[in-house]
Amino acid sequence: MRLHPLLKISRNHHPGVLLILRHYSPLSYTPPHFFHVSTRNPPRMAEDELRQSLANKQAAVDAQAAAVRDLKAQGAAGSDLDAAVESLKALKLEAAAAASQLQAAVAASNGDGSSASREAFRQSVVNTLERRLFYIPSFKIYRGVAGLYDYGPPGCAVKSNVLAFWRQHFVLEENMLEVDCPCVTPEVVLKASGHVDKFTDLMVKDEKTGTCYRADHLLKDFCKEKLEKDLTLPAEKAAELKHVLAVLDDLSAEELGAKLKEYGITAPDTKNPLSDPYPFNLMFQTSIGPSGLSPGYMRPETAQGIFVNFKDLYYYNGNKLPFAAAQIGQAFRNEISPRQGLLRVREFTLAEIEHFVDPDDKSHPKYKEVADLEFLMFPREEQLTGQAAKKLCLGEAVFTGTVNNQTLGFFIGRVYLFLTRLGIDKDRLRFRQHLPNEMAHYAADCWDAEIECSYGWIECVGIADRSAYDLRAHTEKSGVSLVAHEKYAEPREVEQLVIVPAKKELGLAFKGNQKMVVEALEAMNEAEAMEVKTALESQGQVEFNVCTLGKTVTITKNMVSVSKQKKKEHQRVFTPSVIEPSFGIGRIIYCLFEHSFYMRASKAGDEQLNVFRFPSLVAPIKCTVFPLVQQQQYEEVAKLISKSLTAAGISHKIDITGTSIGKRYARTDELGVPLAITVDSTTSVTIRERDSKDQIRVSINEVASVVKEVTDGHSTWADVQWNYPAHSAAGGEGTQ
Amino acid sequence: MRLHPLLKISRNHHPGVLLILRHYSPLSYTPPHFFHVSTRNPPRMAEDELRQSLANKQAAVDAQAAAVRDLKAQGAAGSDLDAAVESLKALKLEAAAAASQLQAAVAASNGDGSSASREAFRQSVVNTLERRLFYIPSFKIYRGVAGLYDYGPPGCAVKSNVLAFWRQHFVLEENMLEVDCPCVTPEVVLKASGHVDKFTDLMVKDEKTGTCYRADHLLKDFCKEKLEKDLTLPAEKAAELKHVLAVLDDLSAEELGAKLKEYGITAPDTKNPLSDPYPFNLMFQTSIGPSGLSPGYMRPETAQGIFVNFKDLYYYNGNKLPFAAAQIGQAFRNEISPRQGLLRVREFTLAEIEHFVDPDDKSHPKYKEVADLEFLMFPREEQLTGQAAKKLCLGEAVFTGTVNNQTLGFFIGRVYLFLTRLGIDKDRLRFRQHLPNEMAHYAADCWDAEIECSYGWIECVGIADRSAYDLRAHTEKSGVSLVAHEKYAEPREVEQLVIVPAKKELGLAFKGNQKMVVEALEAMNEAEAMEVKTALESQGQVEFNVCTLGKTVTITKNMVSVSKQKKKEHQRVFTPSVIEPSFGIGRIIYCLFEHSFYMRASKAGDEQLNVFRFPSLVAPIKCTVFPLVQQQQYEEVAKLISKSLTAAGISHKIDITGTSIGKRYARTDELGVPLAITVDSTTSVTIRERDSKDQIRVSINEVASVVKEVTDGHSTWADVQWNYPAHSAAGGEGTQ
Repeated sequence: MRLHPLLKISRNHHPGVLLILRHYSPLSYTPPHFFHVSTRNPPRMAEDELRQSLANKQAAVDAQAAAVRDLKAQGAAGSDLDAAVESLKALKLEAAAAASQLQAAVAASNGDGSSASREAFRQSVVNTLERRLFYIPSFKIYRGVAGLYDYGPPGCAVKSNVLAFWRQHFVLEENMLEVDCPCVTPEVVLKASGHVDKFTDLMVKDEKTGTCYRADHLLKDFCKEKLEKDLTLPAEKAAELKHVLAVLDDLSAEELGAKLKEYGITAPDTKNPLSDPYPFNLMFQTSIGPSGLSPGYMRPETAQGIFVNFKDLYYYNGNKLPFAAAQIGQAFRNEISPRQGLLRVREFTLAEIEHFVDPDDKSHPKYKEVADLEFLMFPREEQLTGQAAKKLCLGEAVFTGTVNNQTLGFFIGRVYLFLTRLGIDKDRLRFRQHLPNEMAHYAADCWDAEIECSYGWIECVGIADRSAYDLRAHTEKSGVSLVAHEKYAEPREVEQLVIVPAKKELGLAFKGNQKMVVEALEAMNEAEAMEVKTALESQGQVEFNVCTLGKTVTITKNMVSVSKQKKKEHQRVFTPSVIEPSFGIGRIIYCLFEHSFYMRASKAGDEQLNVFRFPSLVAPIKCTVFPLVQQQQYEEVAKLISKSLTAAGISHKIDITGTSIGKRYARTDELGVPLAITVDSTTSVTIRERDSKDQIRVSINEVASVVKEVTDGHSTWADVQWNYPAHSAAGGEGTQ
Repeated sequence: MRLHPLLKISRNHHPGVLLILRHYSPLSYTPPHFFHVSTRNPPRMAEDELRQSLANKQAAVDAQAAAVRDLKAQGAAGSDLDAAVESLKALKLEAAAAASQLQAAVAASNGDGSSASREAFRQSVVNTLERRLFYIPSFKIYRGVAGLYDYGPPGCAVKSNVLAFWRQHFVLEENMLEVDCPCVTPEVVLKASGHVDKFTDLMVKDEKTGTCYRADHLLKDFCKEKLEKDLTLPAEKAAELKHVLAVLDDLSAEELGAKLKEYGITAPDTKNPLSDPYPFNLMFQTSIGPSGLSPGYMRPETAQGIFVNFKDLYYYNGNKLPFAAAQIGQAFRNEISPRQGLLRVREFTLAEIEHFVDPDDKSHPKYKEVADLEFLMFPREEQLTGQAAKKLCLGEAVFTGTVNNQTLGFFIGRVYLFLTRLGIDKDRLRFRQHLPNEMAHYAADCWDAEIECSYGWIECVGIADRSAYDLRAHTEKSGVSLVAHEKYAEPREVEQLVIVPAKKELGLAFKGNQKMVVEALEAMNEAEAMEVKTALESQGQVEFNVCTLGKTVTITKNMVSVSKQKKKEHQRVFTPSVIEPSFGIGRIIYCLFEHSFYMRASKAGDEQLNVFRFPSLVAPIKCTVFPLVQQQQYEEVAKLISKSLTAAGISHKIDITGTSIGKRYARTDELGVPLAITVDSTTSVTIRERDSKDQIRVSINEVASVVKEVTDGHSTWADVQWNYPAHSAAGGEGTQ
């Protein structure tokens, strides 16, 4: 079974459940921690206390209301009644205050304390992204398909910049072996990896309309809504719902079904009854060739293409370990009901690395280059004891064993550098270690790079030490041995168990059963064989169970010889471990969009303008060229500059529309273009920097080289501001 | 119906047949031309004459043999008999000579005159490619899947270099709008494009085993084999078979089936009878979402993703024409029985451009930049009159109307530059115009860039003027109007037909039928309305057929007014034409491999060494670094150089194996690495150029900049040879 960080299959108890964004950790009931929430959240006890306090205050209100009723019934004096009513009013105010306090606490503990403002922020970002064609729902003129998106021109450029940098940062700098395998994959490969049997989500159907839902989503939505909206929920009930949320990912089909029934959950759209949950395989199935007899799937990840090529790649690398192979490509998941925009889609680009290493030596030659990095880490221990993520020195984390080994540490550091250089805010990036029950039994250690955005903390890169699991699975299924060899400097002497059944004697004794007895004898492991040997030597015979016969037979001394022989071994043969950093490119890009987005008032102050503060590395184009006004001579200059920019390899665009220069700046800011060149004379031009809005004046001959200096990162904007005269934007931005 | 140059659907008479590599043109019987063969082939008549001559000689042999038999029977004199036998022998020799002449002619006219040597050459290339992991059959450890290939590390690097150059040459230089759409596509989109109904190949099944074959392949193989091997074939029969080959692509299922029956063609593997041919859709089908109710397909081309986004892209471009959109991505075809290695595969990378243009103005502003290019073109006229492809000046071809318009010409020129800069041999590249019956009825003109390789002339890029077809098809299916607008400088006056039914009078006359009469009146086209008007004016009434009523009614003058009114129009609304260059990246790369490959003797002369003469632009890595011998100090220098190369952005590899330097050079030549740096001192190194094997000596500080100069194309090897001392390779290449 293949366990993929970004496409994870829950495995310990309930292999039928697929987890993607593990927002809730499947802990046992006490104490339930919620790792998905901001690490600065108040501890959970406060909420319980508030719930209790609200219940108490509500009880006081009820009691006082009863007292008022009694007084009325008794025809009590006006002043007594007035006092009692006043007191009731006061108690009601107190209860209301407690309710709103609780409401705030609930919202905070769900990680969306400011959920309204998060939502508003997201709307601004997404509106800008869709309006400027960074991305758009696919097949829009046919009303679209959920979970499928197109990247339009600026999004496509950002994506291709991110992938080019990925290739530079990982493949080229680390000399990785890049491969490119097909998406169409025959069943046998995904059978070996475990996807055919276990890459499933539990689904329920509206029993009348047939509409499908993810069972865990319905249960989750029910619990969250109840917790948020029903403030009179007793503390025990609230605790129960929270427990359900915590263990949601680990529930079996039966357990999920029972909970849905217990809570009376029905189809959200129709309120019709629901079917029992059953597993739905998330791979897009197809058929290879015309016969209809060769089932295939669209790959759910790119990693398998690397594993099946291990033997050739190892040979290509001169039969030497360690080495890494990498692949960038499309992967597919037939989501039951996609939500969260670009974060959960049916087709996406993955970039994966499989670093093959000797399990006895996971050191890394370039580890030192990242050991001094410091960033937010969230080790297992901190999660289990309810602490926050904390800034750690990577070298220290490896040294103390928090991170299992150097190679894993090396990749964590490289991923940190990759993401922050793209423009991910380092304060909203953390590396969270998987809890023991999140990891596969064979995994040595696993860390997710999580990025915080308006949807919460999102797993964007998984970095897992998967031990020898994948290569062993394919070795077993294919019969092709996917192993590495280490030549010893000198041959080593090893003891080897030798079992020689005496076929003649066994034939005489067991006739037709001889073959099965021989096979059973040969199949003994060392301990069993030595036990048999001892018994035969001391007693001359031994009772021996032949499971293929379903009975025990008597073996005598002349029927088998068991011995240990010394042998010279020239090499060690072993299955390499694999350390796998796996990047969800679409998720990284979406988080980058959110981290780069901000709004600022227009100069006139009458509207909010959108800006993406992309670094040049990522920006869809590096600069724009604007003739200040529509005049032949300015347009000529603009074309001249465009030619020199092309020659310098700088992607750019000319905008010769008659729109005001302020509007054109705003348009270019909204695409995240770092620099704008305005042609306002035939000898020199201004260059404006997007975020500061500062302008410098540069001669036409120099403009391309200045832009190149800045966008290549060889000079900062401050450097060039030092070297060139400032230009005051009289009437520029103000006209927008 | 969508007609894609690289994935073509035959359309005029037999829409069921899919053509990919149009080796045979579907001409009428006389005269059959064979455009797939080298343009230097002898004319076809020679073959007919040879066939006739062979038949005559064979007849003479038969006659003489009969004469000899007669003589023997008559007991003729020894000398007479001897003379007759001698004469028979002579005739037999003549017949044998004629047979081998014919054989050679047949082979030549099949384009594989040197088919054995082509085959041997291909084997050498493919062996090298597979051994060095340029590409390998996918899922090899599971015995592979026909038509699926992996690119290994050097192939992947070549592919990514080709794509990067494509993006530079087309998207960036021409400011195209690049998009990135999903592969999974809902049925409605491919229904509109015609793929669901017509993207099929005709298939036959072995009636006993169920094995599937492409019907046209079986017929083609039969005809070719018969023509090549059966030299006694009468000239008429040979002509018939050649005609079948010529019209193969245009045969309907019935015609194909009849031919298979007529020739007694059976299943190649078993000789079992075959089913009748029936269409098999070549798209990989799947199901989107869990309901099973939303059929989808893996896209057979990337173009549809652009068409469905036309409206947004037009808006993004400021509602201005012309503009081009581009997409690079995977496409899928579920081939019935893939053959020809990388040339016909089930999954491949396409790079497509859709250039949208005003149908009334297909000029191109940058056309002048390519107008002076000269290269091999194969216009329709030359094909139809049996002439060869010829070198033409592109500007002339456009001027004389051979190429339909400037924009089409511009792209032909840009494609020529793209392919030749990649390293495609310009003498084995031609632009072949589609014949009228190869093109869709709506297409204005279409040219294929064909590259000659060991498989013959292969269509690698299709450049088609598809008129307004695609946008109209999606407008019709989606109901969303995919059109462009041209604002008039001044409003124009146009006459508009106005029909005003008098509802009151019509109500009185027709009561319950009033509504249907009104609708019928309003639905009149201009001609009908003017006829009614004339009749009413002259006769006061008119007989009017209302088809929804199924009868004719009498309309009088007071029941309807028909007039023409003048109206001002402010803009022209039209569906843009699209000019589509479509690149089969895998095919281009395979041809590039063949064109770059050569063999040369090792210095010792004892073996043939393989070399790929890739230009730096394409080479998988730009240089290698070899410490001459395994010494600490040389390895230190090598690492230092590696760092400076990385800083300069040059992809490279260090090889510190103890292998002889000659072997290491050979290894690097086989990967097509242009330069090799050998560290043989701690102050200076040698740089060796791959093809000349010349070496220069360069100081360690300069080496990175020299390599960069050459691999970036800023200097030639000759330039740097001029500037740096030569190094004589004493003992170098000789040791291999």
